[in-house]
Amino acid sequence: MGNSFGRSFVVTTFGESHGPALGVVVDGCPPKLPLAVADIQRELDRRKPGQSSLTSPRREPDQVEILSGISDDGRTLGTPIAMIVRSVDARGKDYGEVERNYRPSHADFTYDAKFGIRAIAGGGRASARETVGRVAAGAVARAVLAPLGVDVIAWVDEVAGIAAAVDADGDGVTREAVEATPVRCPDPTAAALMTARIERARKDGDSVGGVVRCACRGVPAGWGQPVFDKLDATLAAAMLSIPAVKGFELGSGFAGTLLTGSEHNDRFVRGDDGVIRTATNRSGGVQGGISNGMPLSMRIAFKPTATIMRAQDTVDSDGNPSVIEPRGRHDPCVLPRAVSIVEAMALITLADAYLRHRGQVG
Amino acid sequence: MGNSFGRSFVVTTFGESHGPALGVVVDGCPPKLPLAVADIQRELDRRKPGQSSLTSPRREPDQVEILSGISDDGRTLGTPIAMIVRSVDARGKDYGEVERNYRPSHADFTYDAKFGIRAIAGGGRASARETVGRVAAGAVARAVLAPLGVDVIAWVDEVAGIAAAVDADGDGVTREAVEATPVRCPDPTAAALMTARIERARKDGDSVGGVVRCACRGVPAGWGQPVFDKLDATLAAAMLSIPAVKGFELGSGFAGTLLTGSEHNDRFVRGDDGVIRTATNRSGGVQGGISNGMPLSMRIAFKPTATIMRAQDTVDSDGNPSVIEPRGRHDPCVLPRAVSIVEAMALITLADAYLRHRGQVG
Amino acid sequence: MGNSFGRSFVVTTFGESHGPALGVVVDGCPPKLPLAVADIQRELDRRKPGQSSLTSPRREPDQVEILSGISDDGRTLGTPIAMIVRSVDARGKDYGEVERNYRPSHADFTYDAKFGIRAIAGGGRASARETVGRVAAGAVARAVLAPLGVDVIAWVDEVAGIAAAVDADGDGVTREAVEATPVRCPDPTAAALMTARIERARKDGDSVGGVVRCACRGVPAGWGQPVFDKLDATLAAAMLSIPAVKGFELGSGFAGTLLTGSEHNDRFVRGDDGVIRTATNRSGGVQGGISNGMPLSMRIAFKPTATIMRAQDTVDSDGNPSVIEPRGRHDPCVLPRAVSIVEAMALITLADAYLRHRGQVG
Amino acid sequence: MGNSFGRSFVVTTFGESHGPALGVVVDGCPPKLPLAVADIQRELDRRKPGQSSLTSPRREPDQVEILSGISDDGRTLGTPIAMIVRSVDARGKDYGEVERNYRPSHADFTYDAKFGIRAIAGGGRASARETVGRVAAGAVARAVLAPLGVDVIAWVDEVAGIAAAVDADGDGVTREAVEATPVRCPDPTAAALMTARIERARKDGDSVGGVVRCACRGVPAGWGQPVFDKLDATLAAAMLSIPAVKGFELGSGFAGTLLTGSEHNDRFVRGDDGVIRTATNRSGGVQGGISNGMPLSMRIAFKPTATIMRAQDTVDSDGNPSVIEPRGRHDPCVLPRAVSIVEAMALITLADAYLRHRGQVG
Repeated sequence: MGNSFGRSFVVTTFGESHGPALGVVVDGCPPKLPLAVADIQRELDRRKPGQSSLTSPRREPDQVEILSGISDDGRTLGTPIAMIVRSVDARGKDYGEVERNYRPSHADFTYDAKFGIRAIAGGGRASARETVGRVAAGAVARAVLAPLGVDVIAWVDEVAGIAAAVDADGDGVTREAVEATPVRCPDPTAAALMTARIERARKDGDSVGGVVRCACRGVPAGWGQPVFDKLDATLAAAMLSIPAVKGFELGSGFAGTLLTGSEHNDRFVRGDDGVIRTATNRSGGVQGGISNGMPLSMRIAFKPTATIMRAQDTVDSDGNPSVIEPRGRHDPCVLPRAVSIVEAMALITLADAYLRHRGQVG
Repeated sequence: MGNSFGRSFVVTTFGESHGPALGVVVDGCPPKLPLAVADIQRELDRRKPGQSSLTSPRREPDQVEILSGISDDGRTLGTPIAMIVRSVDARGKDYGEVERNYRPSHADFTYDAKFGIRAIAGGGRASARETVGRVAAGAVARAVLAPLGVDVIAWVDEVAGIAAAVDADGDGVTREAVEATPVRCPDPTAAALMTARIERARKDGDSVGGVVRCACRGVPAGWGQPVFDKLDATLAAAMLSIPAVKGFELGSGFAGTLLTGSEHNDRFVRGDDGVIRTATNRSGGVQGGISNGMPLSMRIAFKPTATIMRAQDTVDSDGNPSVIEPRGRHDPCVLPRAVSIVEAMALITLADAYLRHRGQVG
Repeated sequence: MGNSFGRSFVVTTFGESHGPALGVVVDGCPPKLPLAVADIQRELDRRKPGQSSLTSPRREPDQVEILSGISDDGRTLGTPIAMIVRSVDARGKDYGEVERNYRPSHADFTYDAKFGIRAIAGGGRASARETVGRVAAGAVARAVLAPLGVDVIAWVDEVAGIAAAVDADGDGVTREAVEATPVRCPDPTAAALMTARIERARKDGDSVGGVVRCACRGVPAGWGQPVFDKLDATLAAAMLSIPAVKGFELGSGFAGTLLTGSEHNDRFVRGDDGVIRTATNRSGGVQGGISNGMPLSMRIAFKPTATIMRAQDTVDSDGNPSVIEPRGRHDPCVLPRAVSIVEAMALITLADAYLRHRGQVG
Repeated sequence: MGNSFGRSFVVTTFGESHGPALGVVVDGCPPKLPLAVADIQRELDRRKPGQSSLTSPRREPDQVEILSGISDDGRTLGTPIAMIVRSVDARGKDYGEVERNYRPSHADFTYDAKFGIRAIAGGGRASARETVGRVAAGAVARAVLAPLGVDVIAWVDEVAGIAAAVDADGDGVTREAVEATPVRCPDPTAAALMTARIERARKDGDSVGGVVRCACRGVPAGWGQPVFDKLDATLAAAMLSIPAVKGFELGSGFAGTLLTGSEHNDRFVRGDDGVIRTATNRSGGVQGGISNGMPLSMRIAFKPTATIMRAQDTVDSDGNPSVIEPRGRHDPCVLPRAVSIVEAMALITLADAYLRHRGQVG
């Protein structure tokens, strides 16, 4: 259950990490939007492993195939868009011995506790490979939002405490700047330090965490719902649903709790263009759950990768003490690849908010 | 839209702050659970204003009436439980002059941008009074969960940077200790400092923010869904849907991004009772979106109250520069009252997760 | 569970027949629509008992109170509209002896089988009184649809085999003609025969069933969804959810199964106004689940009322043979009152289809 | 939108008739149920064209591939089960000339009216090929229900007015008897007449409709929800969502409107086994929306196939008068193939009702 996200723009993912294929169905997309395979593939390429020495050397071509919902001339039909990515066959490997042990801070134990069965190979559905479908759906959402001038950009803002000096609302941040470094941090100085830190973690057989920031620009005032489906509440759910995420904040976030109301309040002003704005953006673009026309600005905390190249004490599925030996390869820091996943979840959330708003208010 | 929360235990709230009544419908509650009006009223009394000098002196009796779903002998029928709280009539007051101005960091502007109309008096649906229905529903959720040994407790963990020294998982924290101080912080030393800080804000006509922590103990391993409806993702949405919340973290949260994987991973161990646990709880009770049997531990950031007793620059609904003059009373710190709201949202989320899990897995 | 209907225009009802109140919450209504208490009350008055000798003499004033969602000047706010109707207190009556027996073709037994508990008095939630909330919500839906020129009208088309001679698409049928007879059949000749048949059933202590027809005119082409949420599928669910309904057909329905394709197909033509129509309407206004601009035409079968004034063999809740003795009053034919309920469900379904369509396609 | 069905057992279909593939995702299936490809294929083989001279000679192998949700040893994982069927490539055909005309009683016109774009080839998503996904999902639902002793069986009950003499509750009807004739009617005499009638329609280039009956045996008392999600309301939606269906009735249905209450009521009795039953089953297994332990018995009306081998007047997409010339092959009667689709939708509905009931009541 719970493999769908959204109410009007509904994204359903499926697939186990090492199963035949991973995929997604997007239901509710407006008709007649241009959408090409290349639009999807470009995003998947940013997510896939093996892009640089910073990420897992595992090779997954991650070629997308569109099964439905697109016309022969490359436009959305308004019907469900199904997309799949075939797995490179990983069968035959011996997972047995090692996988009877519960890997610390992985989901092996909780899947067993819940279902009484799990796909052993590659972490099954708990693997970050599940996000392939999200990234593909995010590309569809981008096709919905781009004509409205909505632009979503994310970047690595912090690795192991090394913080980028970048505007919180993404002023001046371009996709080119983000893609310019393998760590996907648009501040080159910080990027160099982050890269060194990640390389050190790799050599240590250890891993590091950090923070991704996401800015959504061009969102008009009025999106989001007042109570339970506040735009920020839905974004929080979207981000916490990404593997390894442990925290979310919008605008001033936790730091804002240190200010007084007179320091924190965002004064309204009228711009030279006659549009009402706020002089500051501590609200992070959302007030009362509804967008106010300012950039949405969020920070998403990723814990250090659970897979490390060190022996770790644990128990096996019978509860007996055991040791996990390091094996294979690992991703010492997931953040560079997480950037496209964060963008995808923000895009999906906004596309849904847009269509819901249009349905009620016109 | 979006006034419902949950899939199997569905909570729908309604009501404007100064309208005839606020209320809630709870659909999907299991039948035959004992539930008395007093169980609901007790929670509402913790939420209502005027409990101490720390909170707004406004008087709202907030007496609940149960309209449906309970048998004559005080048991749930399995049908929708509707509850309402009548408003003390606030009509006749002059809201006109002041309310044509957009209050900074309130939802006046965004409601106008979205709906083109809003309930002027008292903030309408954006008022924290909307949470009356949530607290009532939380009491129903507590009746669902209590027989399973699930215990949810929240407290004020930080006010304007003043932090309580309390175990993150709530070890040793009792409801009595929380209720012992008006600020609802179980650390008496911190409570005294917080109280002084709030009093000072009141005198300054200003406001302060802070952090509420919530611990959920006795949650069995296996609740929550693997992908979009991860238990922590749903809790994040639940918490961000509370007015004034700007951040959420579970377990190690943002601080966890500073650790390495080898420092962060929660080692599995078998307890003397034969139960598999983790030696540490940096995961905050959730792994892969599913509860692991450890206490859930969350922190929720509340910005400083937007209403302050100072003149503030703003614009009116035509965009003309204007000044908001202080008026009436204010709540210099919402955190003491927010404790019951946080508990309610955690309880509702867990009740829904429980029933969904039971539906699929039995 | 399942007390909500609709996806974008969401109607949630609550309340037991003899509980404190029955009511409804309508979430997702567009803002700024004029809506007065009188608009709601007018529809409730058509549903209430005691309107004529044909219906139950029970007196229920059924006065509606709007609790939320409407501005002081009588316009929708875009927030949930909650409405309640207080019950005349029926407590104190002795239901005990009789109600331990399972009434034939009532829901006493199935509620016990499902929930293990039920509201004895008046049938609880299985009572047709539950539809009070639907009729109130239907009046809101009418306010959404009327500005678009959508007009929904239902009438009694058949009672115990006595059929009205009325155009299937409602051509020439006015609300005045429907309301002109207590049986709500716009064919006066048939109405007289139906009335006599119902009076005879009353004298016999028996009951009769029949068919309500509903025509929806002015629905533009394009509403409804292609697959599971076909407009006719949703209408079928809406109608079958009304107590005592056992059948539904759209357009040619069951009779259409006797025709060949060449006889049944609706030829497309262009009207003098340039609009594409069908020359016949055997499709009943829906093709492939989507409205085609022709009137929607449905027939809904109501079984004879289960409550009769005759002794009936049954079993008690322990399974022991027992006899239900006639008691109180009964409604020998529910159809005249069901007309407003059928209209309400059609209106709710169409309002939801409209908002969903607008959300996706604009 | 609306390509999903169910709340706890959620079925989402995708795919255009002549697109790369059709498929389905089943979310919410309980874990650890044995499920083999052969279980799915068996049902698809009953649905596919070209089984006999009665159905379309088109050749579609309809081989299913399971992409996710099943363990290596053939058990459900509790995660989404995705299944696809590749299309035999139909590209290159010239659809242009003919398809610019709106085929009478097809969905060409309404799709254009709704989306402003449509998949021309083969009817796109409005094609009955969409039901491939439903039949595959129905096989999963059968795996959920079979261990509980629930048995769903459908058969052709009427073709062009030729009615089978078969017990309404399916007493004595076996799957073998249904499959014994190509028309899938277990009454051999009627089957012969039906076959002759269908053959005659084929020779005439015409088509015929009819009625499928479906019996669900072994459903325990207590499934279904009291109000909007009544078991019969959900079944009605399920059946009306099948292409070409124009009517639905449960139990006595439309014929029951001719009876009086004293004739219609189902008397409760205690069986020799101590179980409470009804002496008759005019309620069709559902009372107050909840199953009563008796067999569910439904009738579903299918209009005659819209595709016929005769020239038909129509308009083109500009509204100009035009003629559709007969082309290719046609299915003179869809009922034999519809049997497996009706069963699938009944199974899906019941699996969802079961899991929802278990979630709320345990």
